[in-house]
Amino acid sequence: MEILFPMQPIGYVQNAYTDAGQIPKGCGAQHKAEGVLQILPEYEQGLTDIEGYSHLYVIWVFDRVEGFDLLWTPPTDNRPHGVFSTRSPRRPNRLGLTVVELIKREGNGLHVRGLDMLDGTPILDIKPYLSSIPQDDLRRGWLGEAEKRANESGKA
Amino acid sequence: MEILFPMQPIGYVQNAYTDAGQIPKGCGAQHKAEGVLQILPEYEQGLTDIEGYSHLYVIWVFDRVEGFDLLWTPPTDNRPHGVFSTRSPRRPNRLGLTVVELIKREGNGLHVRGLDMLDGTPILDIKPYLSSIPQDDLRRGWLGEAEKRANESGKA
Repeated sequence: MEILFPMQPIGYVQNAYTDAGQIPKGCGAQHKAEGVLQILPEYEQGLTDIEGYSHLYVIWVFDRVEGFDLLWTPPTDNRPHGVFSTRSPRRPNRLGLTVVELIKREGNGLHVRGLDMLDGTPILDIKPYLSSIPQDDLRRGWLGEAEKRANESGKA
Repeated sequence: MEILFPMQPIGYVQNAYTDAGQIPKGCGAQHKAEGVLQILPEYEQGLTDIEGYSHLYVIWVFDRVEGFDLLWTPPTDNRPHGVFSTRSPRRPNRLGLTVVELIKREGNGLHVRGLDMLDGTPILDIKPYLSSIPQDDLRRGWLGEAEKRANESGKA
């Protein structure tokens, strides 16, 4: 039985990334790129009071990716991991999730910092970033180990 | 021009919540409910190495909600806010996002703590929870103010 949930963009990303190769990747990649989340006018009222948040979750679609792989070797490691253990773009439902810093709102445009997606990327949802797990309670799986290996070999 | 991205469940939530009224809501709601993210067998390989993470993002669908409101008065406040400033279930694309703690993996079942969705909820994606914004850098918008008001009036 195939169940499908059709999703419709609430807006689009406007930024300077026109090619995935321009986006910093891997351990310690700094996502400082600024741009605008341009929300469609019919949803503008849904942004009411969003100015009060410093950070937002953005859920979006890797719309220029086709297909997926269950195993993936990320740029941060030299061994394959399950797609759900990674942020691979080639994933079922090709959903992206990014935490951005809200700089300012201008009408239905949200000026943000921390974009790691391409210009024109469809946005499906925006939610307030409310809380965080204390760093001490966090285990970072294979990524922590890969970072440790990279540090030990002096590559980081 | 209507652009649609069809999403297909990669699995379903198994837990004890059969009615939305059973799910704790509002300021300081504790989500300690345990349950299982039952991933479809064809995606099991995508879970490889997920055991190494303490926390995961789950992206899911409020599948029993129909329609949305651009303004919403949440249980934590007595005034309306834009839907994208809240975690309202009645939102465009009705996507849910939850951070869960991974207790253990059994085959294609992930035993987790921190569920705030109903039994049978369709799961669209799972991603590692990697980092967090330092608490000191975080502003919590209208929610911070609503909490402050609740505290001052002795209700919290």
